[in-house]
Amino acid sequence: MDEATILLTGFEPFGGEAVNPSAQVAQALHGRRIAGATVHALELPCRFGDALAALTAAIAASRPQLVLALGQAGGRCDFSIERVAINVDDARIADNGGHQPIDQAVVPAGPAAYFATLPIKAMVAALQAAGLPASVSQSAGTFVCNHVFYGLMHSLRQHPGVRGGFIHLPLLPEQATRQRGQPSLPLSTMVEGVAIALAAALSHSVDLRRSGGAEA
Amino acid sequence: MDEATILLTGFEPFGGEAVNPSAQVAQALHGRRIAGATVHALELPCRFGDALAALTAAIAASRPQLVLALGQAGGRCDFSIERVAINVDDARIADNGGHQPIDQAVVPAGPAAYFATLPIKAMVAALQAAGLPASVSQSAGTFVCNHVFYGLMHSLRQHPGVRGGFIHLPLLPEQATRQRGQPSLPLSTMVEGVAIALAAALSHSVDLRRSGGAEA
Amino acid sequence: MDEATILLTGFEPFGGEAVNPSAQVAQALHGRRIAGATVHALELPCRFGDALAALTAAIAASRPQLVLALGQAGGRCDFSIERVAINVDDARIADNGGHQPIDQAVVPAGPAAYFATLPIKAMVAALQAAGLPASVSQSAGTFVCNHVFYGLMHSLRQHPGVRGGFIHLPLLPEQATRQRGQPSLPLSTMVEGVAIALAAALSHSVDLRRSGGAEA
Amino acid sequence: MDEATILLTGFEPFGGEAVNPSAQVAQALHGRRIAGATVHALELPCRFGDALAALTAAIAASRPQLVLALGQAGGRCDFSIERVAINVDDARIADNGGHQPIDQAVVPAGPAAYFATLPIKAMVAALQAAGLPASVSQSAGTFVCNHVFYGLMHSLRQHPGVRGGFIHLPLLPEQATRQRGQPSLPLSTMVEGVAIALAAALSHSVDLRRSGGAEA
Repeated sequence: MDEATILLTGFEPFGGEAVNPSAQVAQALHGRRIAGATVHALELPCRFGDALAALTAAIAASRPQLVLALGQAGGRCDFSIERVAINVDDARIADNGGHQPIDQAVVPAGPAAYFATLPIKAMVAALQAAGLPASVSQSAGTFVCNHVFYGLMHSLRQHPGVRGGFIHLPLLPEQATRQRGQPSLPLSTMVEGVAIALAAALSHSVDLRRSGGAEA
Repeated sequence: MDEATILLTGFEPFGGEAVNPSAQVAQALHGRRIAGATVHALELPCRFGDALAALTAAIAASRPQLVLALGQAGGRCDFSIERVAINVDDARIADNGGHQPIDQAVVPAGPAAYFATLPIKAMVAALQAAGLPASVSQSAGTFVCNHVFYGLMHSLRQHPGVRGGFIHLPLLPEQATRQRGQPSLPLSTMVEGVAIALAAALSHSVDLRRSGGAEA
Repeated sequence: MDEATILLTGFEPFGGEAVNPSAQVAQALHGRRIAGATVHALELPCRFGDALAALTAAIAASRPQLVLALGQAGGRCDFSIERVAINVDDARIADNGGHQPIDQAVVPAGPAAYFATLPIKAMVAALQAAGLPASVSQSAGTFVCNHVFYGLMHSLRQHPGVRGGFIHLPLLPEQATRQRGQPSLPLSTMVEGVAIALAAALSHSVDLRRSGGAEA
Repeated sequence: MDEATILLTGFEPFGGEAVNPSAQVAQALHGRRIAGATVHALELPCRFGDALAALTAAIAASRPQLVLALGQAGGRCDFSIERVAINVDDARIADNGGHQPIDQAVVPAGPAAYFATLPIKAMVAALQAAGLPASVSQSAGTFVCNHVFYGLMHSLRQHPGVRGGFIHLPLLPEQATRQRGQPSLPLSTMVEGVAIALAAALSHSVDLRRSGGAEA
């Protein structure tokens, strides 16, 4: 019988950055055993379409029981556990392939949105209990991160029982040295936090009932 | 034949505030003729359920050709034209009736989200052309504002051809005197801006193609 | 006998902006009578040295009883009544003459700092009482604004009884349309607020005792 | 002959917090040898007056060659190397002894301000070169941090050749779990950064010429 696998993705650098914490965290956890499952890391291109093709190929190949995609979110200061992916690509900047879609559907004829199927409140609670800042986020944006998140959840409809979600990470301190006034967390903290979030996801088949809302 | 009507809603004060700019703006525009239509203003209670009941009753009664709901968004500095409403009530604070739903659907068995059917890019462009700060927002939160926005779009499925959307407004200056460090805009500016946004909505049956996205 | 005069200065645009609210506000109040004194407006160049030369010449010519300098502060959301000017020029960007001093004294052998001699707490209180957002600011930066503020207070040592101070203003809405996420206030609100602050300054020879501090 | 000593101070918790990163960082570096000097750590009470008495007593006892005071600055995201201390106590909240001075001088008849005598630009440069976010700050506030910083610089006039300064630190991640939306850095990162800043201070008798300014 196959061993349980977690597919953990990160992105290549974009937007003029030399690094991307999401790929570094995924790579750092590659091979790690968490709650009886083994992490399989994958770096995605920061390109509309190609990122999703690579992800769906990896899902088919690794047959994971859980998929967590990671992304970089300059300006955010904590582990942002994303609640919902929306069916729109609207790029403020070009992706790494030079494409800048505006108001295109990720999946034509797909539903307007998908909710993450991970226990987002339990993940926030586990991070906070470990002394790490975390919150539920109500928007993953409209760039390649949301594109991959939406495409992931759409794909998982073909894989009953496989759960999926997305976490946005702050910048690394070295990135914040060049972007004054931006919050950051060091790589080791991010690696620890994502491992905690994965363990919480695997150990909660039903989410906690606690507030994670926003007025606006 | 009936005259064309715009239904424009705002909320009563909440969260300890004595006023709510959204209700004041709606009231100020009551009776105003914009692009051939007459504004009908309505103040909604800041209560889950009741707000939506009042809104749907008003839609039935006034048979508007366009519905725009307004809400207050402390912390935001511009006219936030909302793109999408999600099917979740998750209250960080209690509503004015003392209710604080957590992770409940606005409409059980409703779709995960609805997109606004107003030309949000054209509305942003018109505001900016008038020298007013505006942007597309990717999240209306998970409180009564999103609840009303989602419920509005769900209701409008029964009213083919009637378009709907939501704008979040900053605080009023008088509110910002008590909440240090919060952006604000005066009422007259907000009234002017909402009128401009409504005119743009009425005059664009197809939205502009311009970026209004966010990386995260 | 001479009529009482208020010297009110603003700056020309800088940093790539086409306008500067500080000059517009000063101009709008030129000739206005406030608490028995008449406003004399002056636009200063945004250049180290030249700005101060223009200011001191105007003080000698108009013999004001009170001098208030205004400046633009992108990112701030209220009327920032400055508490203190420091004896350092440290420019992150070049001034309008292409100069970018680093860690130079405004006045060699001058004291490290000067406090405003206007009743800053009374000015904040008057603005808030009028429903306008205001706060005491603990730093006027290290660019031409602080340069003028420091030089003003240094000059006023030669003019016993003449009081001086500085207010930083937010961006105008039209500026905020090009700088997303920046707070703004319309010109009419700024004009009203500066008039209120001036009236409060003229009517309080002793400042109010109320907190205007910051932890950091 | 005496060994060279660095006096490194931090504060006890205040403002309802259970911990204060500044005291933890100082304690963690106690006994550490940096550039030939040994760190002597001291925790100061967060009380006007008492904090300064404890500091001056420690300076007399330990005869340091350099004094660096650390403080907590909720809301800041990097190592904030303070440029200037001003001669005013203006407390928005009460100190730990229940005192809340308003517009009192730290040192009656003292100068309006003192500049740090540490090479603040070199410290920022060293931190950034190590991949840690840092900036010059133009204000240490008006609470106990600025009080200690001002009093320190005033005391050092009696100790020719002894240099002094102040660094504000972000919150710890565990603090940020309870203060949503606040940046944080883990203790290990802060300890590393303060050691780097101290080494830079000790190895630069003359500061670097590089911009560290702010427009406002």
